[in-house]
Amino acid sequence: MSDTRERVVVTEVGMRDGLQSIARIMPTEFKRRWIDAAYAAGVRHMEVASFVPAKLLPQMADADAVIAHALTYDDLIVTALVPNLKGAQRALEAGAHRIVAPISVSAAHSLANVRKTPAEMIDAFAAMRELIDSVASDAGARADTNAGTDAGAGADANGHVRAGPRKHRVELIAGLSTVFGCTLQGAVPYADIAAIARAAVQAGADVIALGDTTGEATPSRVGEIIELVRDAVGDTLRSLHFHDTRGLGLANTLIALQHGIREFDASLAGLGGCPHAPGATGNVNTEDLVFMLDSMGYDTGIDLTRLLASRAVLADALPGEPLYGYLARAGLPKQFIATGASVGSSSDSTESQVLQ
Amino acid sequence: MSDTRERVVVTEVGMRDGLQSIARIMPTEFKRRWIDAAYAAGVRHMEVASFVPAKLLPQMADADAVIAHALTYDDLIVTALVPNLKGAQRALEAGAHRIVAPISVSAAHSLANVRKTPAEMIDAFAAMRELIDSVASDAGARADTNAGTDAGAGADANGHVRAGPRKHRVELIAGLSTVFGCTLQGAVPYADIAAIARAAVQAGADVIALGDTTGEATPSRVGEIIELVRDAVGDTLRSLHFHDTRGLGLANTLIALQHGIREFDASLAGLGGCPHAPGATGNVNTEDLVFMLDSMGYDTGIDLTRLLASRAVLADALPGEPLYGYLARAGLPKQFIATGASVGSSSDSTESQVLQ
Repeated sequence: MSDTRERVVVTEVGMRDGLQSIARIMPTEFKRRWIDAAYAAGVRHMEVASFVPAKLLPQMADADAVIAHALTYDDLIVTALVPNLKGAQRALEAGAHRIVAPISVSAAHSLANVRKTPAEMIDAFAAMRELIDSVASDAGARADTNAGTDAGAGADANGHVRAGPRKHRVELIAGLSTVFGCTLQGAVPYADIAAIARAAVQAGADVIALGDTTGEATPSRVGEIIELVRDAVGDTLRSLHFHDTRGLGLANTLIALQHGIREFDASLAGLGGCPHAPGATGNVNTEDLVFMLDSMGYDTGIDLTRLLASRAVLADALPGEPLYGYLARAGLPKQFIATGASVGSSSDSTESQVLQ
Repeated sequence: MSDTRERVVVTEVGMRDGLQSIARIMPTEFKRRWIDAAYAAGVRHMEVASFVPAKLLPQMADADAVIAHALTYDDLIVTALVPNLKGAQRALEAGAHRIVAPISVSAAHSLANVRKTPAEMIDAFAAMRELIDSVASDAGARADTNAGTDAGAGADANGHVRAGPRKHRVELIAGLSTVFGCTLQGAVPYADIAAIARAAVQAGADVIALGDTTGEATPSRVGEIIELVRDAVGDTLRSLHFHDTRGLGLANTLIALQHGIREFDASLAGLGGCPHAPGATGNVNTEDLVFMLDSMGYDTGIDLTRLLASRAVLADALPGEPLYGYLARAGLPKQFIATGASVGSSSDSTESQVLQ
């Protein structure tokens, strides 16, 4: 059965989006434990840090150390978010495999968030592309001198591969934000979204990701915008990033699946929200997302029991922080096996009289 | 725009399913206020009570008084749930327009819940049909003697129509429960579900409703079972009743919409859960459901702002009881108009640095 299931990539972004959205700072040691626990559950894509000034986001001050730990796992794809060229430089030096640069399709949001217009962000994005390609050439040249040693990667005492000259081509991802609505500008014209997606690809994006920054995505709009962006850039559109602000995170995911998307971001325990906005909520909950995907017969490679157990790291690291999640509360149905037809029975509910 | 929107019926079932699932008893006066507030928000379908022994469900002991109040609204469709013939008799006498009888497709659940096998429940259901038809004949005979007076209905001091001899033909609804999984039996064979749906229609069901009693429905299964039951009974399949136990309530609703279902049950504030089951959760949240439907361009007739305001009745009546809901927490997007394309902007979030 597992041989024929279609793969869906779930990227755990809680270490970046979740942690930067809460007031407290998670000590580096707990971040390492979180990465370990997620890896043990089968998560192979993680966005673990952002390279922004520590003054602005002290939660991310240990980005280098966190990435170094993530890179001890040979088959873990490590993503970092960067707002500018300097961030991209740091992410490259740290050894990230994927670099996400947010490009807001809303001019108002872009100016407020990174003090650049979308056009200026496209220029900055093109500069990141150039930087990445120049580093790749250098690494290639160095790797040539190391022929036969797995492109120069070394192994540490645990047998994990260290970042040497790169094994992976670094992917540059344009994270189009405020695509589904902007708190400052309102609805963003579809023509603007398509134009910015095209410009990002022309500037060198390997991947276009769409972000529901403000939690305003709705099913109809998700379908429309995916088709719009796919018309503009084809299969370079690859990934969706939903927040669950208005309870539509999984419904939106379902529509995206129906429109061919197979990569999604999510946060363990729905970690997130914003210290300055009482109504804000975090990303789609990783456990609930994986449960839905499993139930539909998709292969995420993630073990739900271990994933649920990994919440203990958050409970230890952030006592009192709200941890969300339906599955964590209700438990896995008793006869759950990772196929839709097998989601059958729950051990956790008892019956009251005359339920319907 | 509103002329062309497709209608979706949302039935508020919190007064029945929500209240019978919490330990406290809501005083009758608050139930009346809740009905008033829901009506003021545009809700025109409510399941307000169940007719079960007060010893078993003291929460429902005032069913007659609650239905009498609901019937003061001329255009409100009033539903009652009944487990047996005696309950049906009481619901008819009280004047309910729709009577829902749960029929579990799981033999184990049926025996535990109503001490009858599914086959015995079908027999009981046929007896309810007979009772309803005989009462209808009587009422018809009485109405004939009242010719010219709107089938004998009178108006009270507020101009509301009182229940006289019936204006509406009473609808009998077979609420197929544990359709998507049973905590006792596990997955229920599809052949059993189809057979019981057919038997219910043969026994006189006007409507087949499918209930996710145990909160185990998943999107793939929802689509499969809707098609299965529609193959068996055609458009007599009309209504879906989801719980949100594992966070899939709205995703499941979306699939049901795609499969042509246009009637859904929901509870204000997701009221529910079960005093004996810590992991259990209530029905799909009415506010969040209406928001999703509005955003997709469906016409529910419900005003979201007033619906959100109606939560105040629950807060007053049940201090300390958890009230759920994403929309209640995040607020309506600022530029929300009841069409998908207009869900654009939120006033409630502020920006942190480098969001994606």
